[in-house]
Amino acid sequence: MDESFDAIKKAVASFNPQQTIIPIRSGFNYQSPSTGLIEFMPLYEKGEEVTLKVVGYHPDNPKDHNLPTILSTISMYDTQTGSMTGIMDGVFLTALRTGAASALASVLLAKPGSSNLGLIGCGAQSVTQLHAISRVFPIATVRIYDVDTEAMLSFKERVDVLGLDVNIEISNLEDIISESDIVCTCTSIAVGEGPLFTGMKSKEHLHINAVGSDFPGKVELPIEFLNNSFVCPDFLEQAVIEGECQQMQRDKIGSDLATVAQNASDYESKKYERTVFDSTGWALEDEAMMRLFVQYAEELQIGEHIEIEAVNNDVKNPYSFLQKPVR
Amino acid sequence: MDESFDAIKKAVASFNPQQTIIPIRSGFNYQSPSTGLIEFMPLYEKGEEVTLKVVGYHPDNPKDHNLPTILSTISMYDTQTGSMTGIMDGVFLTALRTGAASALASVLLAKPGSSNLGLIGCGAQSVTQLHAISRVFPIATVRIYDVDTEAMLSFKERVDVLGLDVNIEISNLEDIISESDIVCTCTSIAVGEGPLFTGMKSKEHLHINAVGSDFPGKVELPIEFLNNSFVCPDFLEQAVIEGECQQMQRDKIGSDLATVAQNASDYESKKYERTVFDSTGWALEDEAMMRLFVQYAEELQIGEHIEIEAVNNDVKNPYSFLQKPVR
Repeated sequence: MDESFDAIKKAVASFNPQQTIIPIRSGFNYQSPSTGLIEFMPLYEKGEEVTLKVVGYHPDNPKDHNLPTILSTISMYDTQTGSMTGIMDGVFLTALRTGAASALASVLLAKPGSSNLGLIGCGAQSVTQLHAISRVFPIATVRIYDVDTEAMLSFKERVDVLGLDVNIEISNLEDIISESDIVCTCTSIAVGEGPLFTGMKSKEHLHINAVGSDFPGKVELPIEFLNNSFVCPDFLEQAVIEGECQQMQRDKIGSDLATVAQNASDYESKKYERTVFDSTGWALEDEAMMRLFVQYAEELQIGEHIEIEAVNNDVKNPYSFLQKPVR
Repeated sequence: MDESFDAIKKAVASFNPQQTIIPIRSGFNYQSPSTGLIEFMPLYEKGEEVTLKVVGYHPDNPKDHNLPTILSTISMYDTQTGSMTGIMDGVFLTALRTGAASALASVLLAKPGSSNLGLIGCGAQSVTQLHAISRVFPIATVRIYDVDTEAMLSFKERVDVLGLDVNIEISNLEDIISESDIVCTCTSIAVGEGPLFTGMKSKEHLHINAVGSDFPGKVELPIEFLNNSFVCPDFLEQAVIEGECQQMQRDKIGSDLATVAQNASDYESKKYERTVFDSTGWALEDEAMMRLFVQYAEELQIGEHIEIEAVNNDVKNPYSFLQKPVR
C-alpha cells in the first residue's frame, strides 16, 4: 500500500494534461439482466503507452453471484506497434488505488493528526480505504456503518490482516458524521436514493472521501454539505457527470486533485475547513498502478506469457498458419 | 470464410439499433514514436453481452517490425456480472470480417456474375478480400496493384492456399479501374495523400469496396467518383468522420449497409450503376465473428481458461488471498 500511495502521489504530482491524455470514461449501463454498468477508461501517455481499464459495477454481485461488486481488467498497448503488452486483473488494483487516492486527498485536505475515521459502507472498498488512510494518519478509532448488517459485522475480521492497532466500533450515520475527522463513503446506494444523510452536525474540519458516487444519478452526500465545503474532484469533467459534483453548480466546485497536489501550500488552510474529495476513479491512478504491478511481475517473475494476437511469419498473409487450401 | 460471410450477413440482416448499441469508435492517434492509432470499438447487445475490440493501425509495422499493420484483440463481458468471459485475437478476425463485409456489400450492390476483380493494395487485407469475394462471385481475373512492389509480387504466392482457379495479373491503376466489375481498395495511403486516382474511366456498373479509409484525412477514392456513385457506408456516423464519406455532403450519401441488406429489392437497380461500399469497420461484424469463434473454440475444445480477474472466496475482502499482515 505504501508503494501504491507513492506511485499515485508521484503520478498526480507530475500530471500534465498535455502529455497524458485522459478522456472521460464511457460505456453502457442497464437495469437488466442486472442493474449495472460496464465502462472503458482509456489513457494515452504520449510517446509511451495506452492503457485501458474495463470496469464493471454490478451491486447485486455479492448477494446473487458471490462475486465482487466491481470486476475489472486493465491492459496496456505499445504506441510503437499497437501491440497489447499486458493484461491483468483490475479488481485488486482498483481497490488499492481507490484507497491510495483517498489517502492522498486526505493528506492534502484533512486535518494533520486526524485520528477518528468513519466508514460508511463496509464492502470491499472500505477495507482499502482504512488500510491506505491508516498508513498516513494516526488512526485510533474507526466508526463503521452499513445498511447490510452482515457486511458491518464481518468488517473487523476482514481487516484483521492489516494488523492495525485501532478500535473498530459499529456505529451509526449521525455519530460517524459528528465524531470523525475523516469519513469515507463507499456505498452502493441506488440511483435516485441518495444522499446517505442530511442535516447532520460535523466537526469544522471534517474531510470526506466520497468514493461511491460514480454513476449519473448516484450521490452519497447532501448538497448543503457540498456547498459548505471545499470540493476537490479527481477528474472534474467526469465528476460533473457521475460524481458528487453532478449536484453542484460549476462555480462552487473547488480545484481538482492535481491542482491541489501541485500547489499544496496554497490549500494548507483547507485542512481546517470542511472538505470533500469527489473520487469518481481516475485512469491516471490505474496507469500508475499497472506500471507498479508490471514492475513487480517482472522482478518476481510472476505472470505468464500468453499469445493473443495472431502474428504469423508472413505479416501480409492472414492464412500463413495454414498448410492446406481453405474454403 | 463461408461461415464468416453467413454470420455477418445474418447479423446485418437482423441489426436493430434499439437492441444493439454501437457507439462510434474512439481512441488516440499520433505521429510518434510511429504514425499510428489505437482505437476502441465497443458494442452492447442488450440483455446479453458487451464486446470490445481494441485495434491498432500502424502502417510502418511490416517494414519496421515484421508485424501486421493491424494488431487487435477482442474481449467479451457478461452483463449479468460484468465479468470478462473471453479475450481473443482480433488480427485474423479483422481480416476475415473485413473480407466478408466486402463480399456482402458486393452481393448487394455489384453486378451479378461479376468476374473481373481489381485489388489496389496487396497487404494482408487484400488476401481476405479476394477470398471472400471469390466465394460469392465467379471471379476469373484478378488485377492487382501496390506501390510496394514486394507486396505486389508476393501476392500470388500468398493466395495459393485459397486454391482458386483465377488468373492473377500484375496491373496498374488505370487498367484496374477500367476493366474491373468489382474493385477493393485496401491501402495504407497516408493522411492527406489520397485519393489513389482521379479522372479514370470505369465500367458503368463498377462496384468499389473502399476498405482502407478509416482515419480522419485518409481517403482512397476521388470525390467525383463518390458523387457519381451510390455510396453505402457500413456505419454512417463513423464514415463521415473517417471513411470516404468524410469527403461528401451528407445528402449525397446513400443508405447504410443494414438498410440496403434489410430492403435488398429496393436497391436491385444499383447493381447496374456505380456503387461504393465505404467500409470503415463496424463493431457488429466483430461481435458476429467473436461469437462464431467462441462457438468453434467450444466445439473444438481449443483455447484455455485463464484467470485474470482477482476473485477471492470473500468478495468483500480484497486481501483474502493473504495469510499474514500487510503493510
